[in-house]
Amino acid sequence: MKKMIIGVMGPGTGAKTQDLENAYELGRLIAQQGWVLLTGGRNVGVMDAASRGAKAANGLTIGILPTSDKSGMSEAIDIPIITDLGNGRNNINVLSSDVVIACGMGVGTAAEIALALKSDKQVILLTDNREAQAFFTKLSPQHVMLSNSPEDAIGLIYQILGE
Amino acid sequence: MKKMIIGVMGPGTGAKTQDLENAYELGRLIAQQGWVLLTGGRNVGVMDAASRGAKAANGLTIGILPTSDKSGMSEAIDIPIITDLGNGRNNINVLSSDVVIACGMGVGTAAEIALALKSDKQVILLTDNREAQAFFTKLSPQHVMLSNSPEDAIGLIYQILGE
Amino acid sequence: MKKMIIGVMGPGTGAKTQDLENAYELGRLIAQQGWVLLTGGRNVGVMDAASRGAKAANGLTIGILPTSDKSGMSEAIDIPIITDLGNGRNNINVLSSDVVIACGMGVGTAAEIALALKSDKQVILLTDNREAQAFFTKLSPQHVMLSNSPEDAIGLIYQILGE
Amino acid sequence: MKKMIIGVMGPGTGAKTQDLENAYELGRLIAQQGWVLLTGGRNVGVMDAASRGAKAANGLTIGILPTSDKSGMSEAIDIPIITDLGNGRNNINVLSSDVVIACGMGVGTAAEIALALKSDKQVILLTDNREAQAFFTKLSPQHVMLSNSPEDAIGLIYQILGE
Repeated sequence: MKKMIIGVMGPGTGAKTQDLENAYELGRLIAQQGWVLLTGGRNVGVMDAASRGAKAANGLTIGILPTSDKSGMSEAIDIPIITDLGNGRNNINVLSSDVVIACGMGVGTAAEIALALKSDKQVILLTDNREAQAFFTKLSPQHVMLSNSPEDAIGLIYQILGE
Repeated sequence: MKKMIIGVMGPGTGAKTQDLENAYELGRLIAQQGWVLLTGGRNVGVMDAASRGAKAANGLTIGILPTSDKSGMSEAIDIPIITDLGNGRNNINVLSSDVVIACGMGVGTAAEIALALKSDKQVILLTDNREAQAFFTKLSPQHVMLSNSPEDAIGLIYQILGE
Repeated sequence: MKKMIIGVMGPGTGAKTQDLENAYELGRLIAQQGWVLLTGGRNVGVMDAASRGAKAANGLTIGILPTSDKSGMSEAIDIPIITDLGNGRNNINVLSSDVVIACGMGVGTAAEIALALKSDKQVILLTDNREAQAFFTKLSPQHVMLSNSPEDAIGLIYQILGE
Repeated sequence: MKKMIIGVMGPGTGAKTQDLENAYELGRLIAQQGWVLLTGGRNVGVMDAASRGAKAANGLTIGILPTSDKSGMSEAIDIPIITDLGNGRNNINVLSSDVVIACGMGVGTAAEIALALKSDKQVILLTDNREAQAFFTKLSPQHVMLSNSPEDAIGLIYQILGE
């Protein structure tokens, strides 16, 4: 009965317009495949955009919140998990995702990618940050995949799940 | 879009037959009200029974797992949240629940009740443990309610939500 | 090289005068035995009083803080461990203590006692709360001991360590 | 009374000989300055080498363990903090350190650097991994410093503390 859960991680504040557009489209496509979307749950940046995209396609959205209550939660979250762990919640984000997509780049996103790799999760990078691509690809070549678009990322997920 | 989430906490190993029957019926009734069930997610005791009851009524079930992967997860869980926090996950269980029901009693259950009260959550006790009733009622009289049956507990939830 | 670590848990706000006096004396006695004191680290209630007592006897004090920085830390803490876990830090308090003393009673203290028992730690109660004594003694008879004074509690620690 | 705490993070398994030599020397130098050493506490790799170096200079060593007990702890740890948080303990490592030194590189180390930067901590890199230098320097230019040797890193700490 376990549902397929796809995590989309990315900057809260400081997300670029392209990242937000990609996140919204990722959320929409994930919901269309019948998968559950998991994000950091806040009402900013990539997590909010992805969640809104998923709801636009009638998906189910989970938000792993860093706070002790629902303040600051995205309105597009169906299931808020209230952790009160601050950035300590990042490890839960990646452990609970069957596949992790990093959409854009920032310090929090970098932490989530590294924690995902530490737990042998497959991570799909959707970012034009060349240094990030070089660093993470060298760090864990078997677990990092590069994508050029939301559609490309979805294709990679099917490839991973088919393995 | 936030769904109503009801947490059912209780012993894993060491649950009594009556606790397991109550847990199954609680899960079933929670699902029938259209609410989401949240438990500790493992395949034992009250958490497993409640989750199975909820699935019997086509409910949605969330399991907040203490482990770093899905080993030991109840088959009746739809959305496993993998925390790798051990008993540290207990605080997430109660923070993420709109109302907490303690079904039976044990050391883990006692910790969850106390953490729920610490966060000003309403807790419904469904147990014949007289010492537990006396202790928690005195500790936090405004937040603890006693129930005699699963049906009674559901009635108390409506009373709490109506406040 | 591992040092002996004794945890003193108790109410932050809402501690009684007797609890604060007991906590100060516990801290002092723990330091005099050459043991390290571990508390929740904040500048209130039992944790602050115990830490000040330990420093009065030139002890070493560890504070496991719930916050993301040192704001609200007791000035009597030598080693602040900054967890940003909120009440999730309570499990660390008890896991890191070789023996746990509960000085006074409250919802946070009850959670720590229950978590300690969940991990098979010995817990010494120093409280006049009869319901707490009855509840925890019945819950885990082999792991709960009752004490009447700080001196008595120290004697019980020697008894536990000698086992 | 708060002591100065320096965190040394680096690979457990998979550390290079140069990393281990640097870690030992870092631990020794940190202890010689009268600072407390904080590591991940396990008996492998950089954390073990740094702790042994600190004890060789009679320093005080704290280990933030991922496990639920002391199994796997470095013998050079004075104060084990038992978190049972798995990799979730990484955030505690960096929050509790006044300055973080990354000695060598790996997925866990990368997570700790990113979490440190997320909390505006100063991070000193002591690694010949060019991609890591390029990535983290670009990610957070004000908070990342590069060092060539343990002595150089200690000099940078004095520079940071003097600010």
